[in-house]
Amino acid sequence: MLKVQIINGPNLNLLGKREPEIYGNQSFEDFFKILQQDFPNLELHYFQSNTEGELLNKIHEVGFTFDAIIINPGAYTHTSIALRDAISGVKTPVIEVHISNTHQREEFRKKSYVSEVAKGVIIGFGLNSYRLALQSL
Amino acid sequence: MLKVQIINGPNLNLLGKREPEIYGNQSFEDFFKILQQDFPNLELHYFQSNTEGELLNKIHEVGFTFDAIIINPGAYTHTSIALRDAISGVKTPVIEVHISNTHQREEFRKKSYVSEVAKGVIIGFGLNSYRLALQSL
Amino acid sequence: MLKVQIINGPNLNLLGKREPEIYGNQSFEDFFKILQQDFPNLELHYFQSNTEGELLNKIHEVGFTFDAIIINPGAYTHTSIALRDAISGVKTPVIEVHISNTHQREEFRKKSYVSEVAKGVIIGFGLNSYRLALQSL
Amino acid sequence: MLKVQIINGPNLNLLGKREPEIYGNQSFEDFFKILQQDFPNLELHYFQSNTEGELLNKIHEVGFTFDAIIINPGAYTHTSIALRDAISGVKTPVIEVHISNTHQREEFRKKSYVSEVAKGVIIGFGLNSYRLALQSL
Amino acid sequence: MLKVQIINGPNLNLLGKREPEIYGNQSFEDFFKILQQDFPNLELHYFQSNTEGELLNKIHEVGFTFDAIIINPGAYTHTSIALRDAISGVKTPVIEVHISNTHQREEFRKKSYVSEVAKGVIIGFGLNSYRLALQSL
Amino acid sequence: MLKVQIINGPNLNLLGKREPEIYGNQSFEDFFKILQQDFPNLELHYFQSNTEGELLNKIHEVGFTFDAIIINPGAYTHTSIALRDAISGVKTPVIEVHISNTHQREEFRKKSYVSEVAKGVIIGFGLNSYRLALQSL
Amino acid sequence: MLKVQIINGPNLNLLGKREPEIYGNQSFEDFFKILQQDFPNLELHYFQSNTEGELLNKIHEVGFTFDAIIINPGAYTHTSIALRDAISGVKTPVIEVHISNTHQREEFRKKSYVSEVAKGVIIGFGLNSYRLALQSL
Amino acid sequence: MLKVQIINGPNLNLLGKREPEIYGNQSFEDFFKILQQDFPNLELHYFQSNTEGELLNKIHEVGFTFDAIIINPGAYTHTSIALRDAISGVKTPVIEVHISNTHQREEFRKKSYVSEVAKGVIIGFGLNSYRLALQSL
Amino acid sequence: MLKVQIINGPNLNLLGKREPEIYGNQSFEDFFKILQQDFPNLELHYFQSNTEGELLNKIHEVGFTFDAIIINPGAYTHTSIALRDAISGVKTPVIEVHISNTHQREEFRKKSYVSEVAKGVIIGFGLNSYRLALQSL
Amino acid sequence: MLKVQIINGPNLNLLGKREPEIYGNQSFEDFFKILQQDFPNLELHYFQSNTEGELLNKIHEVGFTFDAIIINPGAYTHTSIALRDAISGVKTPVIEVHISNTHQREEFRKKSYVSEVAKGVIIGFGLNSYRLALQSL
Amino acid sequence: MLKVQIINGPNLNLLGKREPEIYGNQSFEDFFKILQQDFPNLELHYFQSNTEGELLNKIHEVGFTFDAIIINPGAYTHTSIALRDAISGVKTPVIEVHISNTHQREEFRKKSYVSEVAKGVIIGFGLNSYRLALQSL
Amino acid sequence: MLKVQIINGPNLNLLGKREPEIYGNQSFEDFFKILQQDFPNLELHYFQSNTEGELLNKIHEVGFTFDAIIINPGAYTHTSIALRDAISGVKTPVIEVHISNTHQREEFRKKSYVSEVAKGVIIGFGLNSYRLALQSL
Repeated sequence: MLKVQIINGPNLNLLGKREPEIYGNQSFEDFFKILQQDFPNLELHYFQSNTEGELLNKIHEVGFTFDAIIINPGAYTHTSIALRDAISGVKTPVIEVHISNTHQREEFRKKSYVSEVAKGVIIGFGLNSYRLALQSL
Repeated sequence: MLKVQIINGPNLNLLGKREPEIYGNQSFEDFFKILQQDFPNLELHYFQSNTEGELLNKIHEVGFTFDAIIINPGAYTHTSIALRDAISGVKTPVIEVHISNTHQREEFRKKSYVSEVAKGVIIGFGLNSYRLALQSL
Repeated sequence: MLKVQIINGPNLNLLGKREPEIYGNQSFEDFFKILQQDFPNLELHYFQSNTEGELLNKIHEVGFTFDAIIINPGAYTHTSIALRDAISGVKTPVIEVHISNTHQREEFRKKSYVSEVAKGVIIGFGLNSYRLALQSL
Repeated sequence: MLKVQIINGPNLNLLGKREPEIYGNQSFEDFFKILQQDFPNLELHYFQSNTEGELLNKIHEVGFTFDAIIINPGAYTHTSIALRDAISGVKTPVIEVHISNTHQREEFRKKSYVSEVAKGVIIGFGLNSYRLALQSL
Repeated sequence: MLKVQIINGPNLNLLGKREPEIYGNQSFEDFFKILQQDFPNLELHYFQSNTEGELLNKIHEVGFTFDAIIINPGAYTHTSIALRDAISGVKTPVIEVHISNTHQREEFRKKSYVSEVAKGVIIGFGLNSYRLALQSL
Repeated sequence: MLKVQIINGPNLNLLGKREPEIYGNQSFEDFFKILQQDFPNLELHYFQSNTEGELLNKIHEVGFTFDAIIINPGAYTHTSIALRDAISGVKTPVIEVHISNTHQREEFRKKSYVSEVAKGVIIGFGLNSYRLALQSL
Repeated sequence: MLKVQIINGPNLNLLGKREPEIYGNQSFEDFFKILQQDFPNLELHYFQSNTEGELLNKIHEVGFTFDAIIINPGAYTHTSIALRDAISGVKTPVIEVHISNTHQREEFRKKSYVSEVAKGVIIGFGLNSYRLALQSL
Repeated sequence: MLKVQIINGPNLNLLGKREPEIYGNQSFEDFFKILQQDFPNLELHYFQSNTEGELLNKIHEVGFTFDAIIINPGAYTHTSIALRDAISGVKTPVIEVHISNTHQREEFRKKSYVSEVAKGVIIGFGLNSYRLALQSL
Repeated sequence: MLKVQIINGPNLNLLGKREPEIYGNQSFEDFFKILQQDFPNLELHYFQSNTEGELLNKIHEVGFTFDAIIINPGAYTHTSIALRDAISGVKTPVIEVHISNTHQREEFRKKSYVSEVAKGVIIGFGLNSYRLALQSL
Repeated sequence: MLKVQIINGPNLNLLGKREPEIYGNQSFEDFFKILQQDFPNLELHYFQSNTEGELLNKIHEVGFTFDAIIINPGAYTHTSIALRDAISGVKTPVIEVHISNTHQREEFRKKSYVSEVAKGVIIGFGLNSYRLALQSL
Repeated sequence: MLKVQIINGPNLNLLGKREPEIYGNQSFEDFFKILQQDFPNLELHYFQSNTEGELLNKIHEVGFTFDAIIINPGAYTHTSIALRDAISGVKTPVIEVHISNTHQREEFRKKSYVSEVAKGVIIGFGLNSYRLALQSL
Repeated sequence: MLKVQIINGPNLNLLGKREPEIYGNQSFEDFFKILQQDFPNLELHYFQSNTEGELLNKIHEVGFTFDAIIINPGAYTHTSIALRDAISGVKTPVIEVHISNTHQREEFRKKSYVSEVAKGVIIGFGLNSYRLALQSL
């Protein structure tokens, strides 16, 4: 049974509260339970933090033993070279997902440090972006 | 039964021949037959052209009646505003896919005019990028 | 009687269908008939193509014998050096027209390769941009 | 009877004297009289100033009661955000005209702050640029 | 009675110690007590952290119930898209303050991600910047 | 009794008429009377001009004898090095205010030549920006 | 006997007609006959198209069996990533030639996507650029 | 006897008051009297204005009859295309002078629109820059 | 006896595991013990964190009492203005070290915010970079 | 008999020793002897220097009497405006050659100051680049 | 008697031969004799070299004992930081002169590393630029 | 016994004379004698030149037989691609040193062509930078 870590970056704990016209109004915790039901053959883990360093810690922790990491790095996508280094420093392949189409928002959201080291990228399918990432495994 | 048009842009007819270390060595036609078998509930159509204008023509042709377009715009991804306008000018939602992770190649492959008008973007899963796009429907 | 070639570039065949809030909902063919009635002293010709090379062919074909070319290069305005070279390579003077005010849209629509070689430029008067171009002759 | 204000910006008082190979050798005052004869159905007014602030004052003065403003902002086209704000701050629609094709001159003449708020733009037809602007009304 | 959260970002705990010629030599804790005395009608809260993620946590915590947030994001002003997202993701209006005039320092301090989502910005009045922010409520 | 000169730059005479959704619909003259009542201990003077040179003249006139200048340079904020030089050339400290949050508008409104020489900057509090500036004295 | 494909891009069919002060007044067809006589040991083929896609088709067609391709990509030199991909996707080595010295013309003609994948580049020797390319074989 | 117009731009009326460590503490009027004594063979005229338009008016007024214009455009050096056009639009040759070495100050003072059309440029000799300009005649 | 704090930034806890072809395969803890033996006259302390804020806390903690700080800021070198401010805000001199030659890697690793405030910089000597930093004391 | 000067710039004396995978392992002196044998009708001269000024001296020396200069400016290609000026200052036409394809190496090797004044440019044919240059005469 | 060193940089030995329409056709040696006659109270020395390092040597040699250096750095003006450092490293004040108006030529000639450390700059008066420099002493 | 060549670039012969507040007032020759005493086990050689080409010659001369080169390229650090090529063209490893912290000076001193090919870089330790470089061997 594949072990998969889902990691959500800054502000994604606001899901369901923040700008619902962009991100929908379902909390990620609720959605995660559905995912677990829909993918009974995967051992799914979930972690969210607003702190860049804690995201790095989690990647380091699972990055040599898990089978896949699915990460939505939120705003750190565009600014964190440390995140990029963490991903390229571990063995586990990483899939980058985004809920909204980041290319349709501000110019500064088009740059992704993470994409350059991710195995694959899925953008703009709402919460289904996570589901597609799991299906890709 | 959903009607889906798959469109491949320039040089993708070389699939299986061109730079197999990046793109694999299976021709898209062979892969397309497998897709048709795997998604029996979708009416799948396939079109490839190296000519920008013919890609536009095809988008115009199916863009008001089909349920989805899955496009790999190849090199036109990065240079064609006309393609962008065609996509934003039709009604059918368009999903952009790429076989290789364009972010890990030359700098000029990071810019996508298509992403700014696509419904979603899937990058880097090899030919499975198309499969994930179909699963998203 | 002056011979005038009107040339429309990519996606302008969608006129009346595409983004009517920007471009209106009249097809260009209908509008062209009105133009012919309104300018009985001009021999008007009309050509549209989504393919850059066919636009070049048409410019080459009429560019040494017609009295004027009125071109709306659509998205190729901003990307096609080949179009620019075709215009500077022929003898017939070329007037560039745009239906919408391209300066009020995306940043990349502000650059025009065609303006640098056109005799004149008319932007933003809706379909009347063509009419003004004819009046300028 | 439509009331139309024509406004000329800096150095256009030199028309007929300054760089005649670019701008011709007719003074604008002479040309204005011809315009008045040719458009007897329009109430035409003319104003020229080299001072940015006086151009703003004139736009403010007529910008809530006239039917159209035709402006050749001269060099302020490329540098004046204040002019842009004046135009977007009044109710009267504004048409931007240029005598020479500004795109064929120095690089810094390609940027127009005015185009972004003008209703339409006419460039490069010599003094006929004004005439076309009046015909567009 | 309005509830107001004051948030100070990185290095502002050094106030009174760090570069006193720029920031003065009073600690913020001392100054906060004076503020509380001077604004007896406001319920003032104070929080400082050097960790970007903890600043986000605090904004999330108070951002749906407090009446105002006054934030001096320190160096994160110029680099943190996550902070920007946190502010635009909550309901409470946010006022950005800076002690020194950031425009008179290094070039990289002129860019503020926070200003683009703040309700208002007050820069350069020393510790009185906070006082003015409170007066604006 | 402190002598304070308030200076408004281009287009601010349109206040109450121009884009009221951004600037409100009160004229500055009306607001100035209220300010005079609210700050009876200050000797307030008001000046507005659309001409850059007249703004410089006024700064020169009061800049060696008044106690403070509060300036809203309007569009000249972003383009006038002359204004910057006038401010740095006089003795009286200058506070820069803006009614709207300039950071939330076009990119070119983010650059301020004035901020680099102003004593303090207050942005985005509507007409209360002026009030806060007076309170800072 | 080596098989060599000469490919000319957009507007090169105008050779002899277009801007003769830059390109001379001999048509390429005439010149090609001379080349065939001068290089009797090479099997020379000639193709010209104004359409980017047709240039790609030709490169694909000959790119796995011919011994060399000599291409003058005209204006597509500077804009076509698709052309670059076609060249790097085939096995036949490609030599890029230009009739005029592109470095002495507009700034945008200095960028060549083709040079980055060509085996060699010959610029500025008039029609002799082709001859030198053949001599290099 | 040569007629020479000296023109000083914005803030130069502050000479002797503004930043004396950069500009010295002599007023230009005093210095002008010395110049008149030192160059008895030249008919010297002096004009200063803070308003860009008035500088243009003066250039237009003398620019077809005087023998030389010596201009210190102050801050308009770096921003005024209108000034550039005025200079290139008149017949009288123009010499640009600066009191301080503009290259040793802020980055934005390195760009000069005036230098591109001036006959000569003299920078950094204090008030002697004017004297050298007169000697060059 | 000099007190020296060694601080390692993000991902340096992976030393020995991450990309050993760049960073070698010795853990920093092992190396630190050797350093302590080799520099018996220095009181050496070691701290590592992946969290930017904790690095700031540590700098604040030791930055007024220790004799030197040796920091390898990892990826925060290139992005953290907060780190720069912390270093310039304390009294203890700081030496920046890097294990690999950052100039030979991606373009974005060439910018260092830390170098601009460090006392010295040592790059590219492997773990010996730390040793050289200690020798410099 | 045509007199031809071949000039090699910095580091080309290392030919055969330096990076042989890029430049081959034959010294230029050996190759020059072969060239002399292969072109008995040309009077060939050879000069190499690592000093920019000596290259200029040589160009000045032969640039008014020789029939052609063939120059490989090495790294000075990308940085030397002085070399450019020397070439445009003499009468003898200059052909620029490069052994490797400079476009396939670092970004900074794409800029050539020399190409803008050379008669022709030959890049990427190994030592045969010189041979082709001689054949072009 | 003041000791003055005149230094000419690369290609200025071609004066009289190179591009006479820009630089005139008098050699500098001839002109230098006239200068010596015209300034009998100055001890004038002249040096020219095409080698950057020799220019530095000369500046070092005279830069602590002479009263002034007048330098025309030619093309090194725009590229040589070493020249800049030499000038700022010596005690003798340096005046930069140019024969032609460098601002009216290519874009890359607008940047001067020398101007940032020169005492004064004189541009565009032909050989009289040197004369004015001497008069300024 | 290791053979080590120390090479100093332009203006470093001024050491002790030039800007002593940045570089100290000891000549390098004096310092070199101390180095020789302090490192009796190394065979140290010293060379300085202001001429780029002579620096290249020296690198070529020792670059295949010495054990290490320690170079302070002075201003050529930032401009010389030739120096970079010389270093990458020889076998001997090269260590780059700088006396002052180049990152704390002008922006153009942050770019180093040499760092990209050096084995290691040591910046800002005064003359001790050389000492640390020797210790690293």
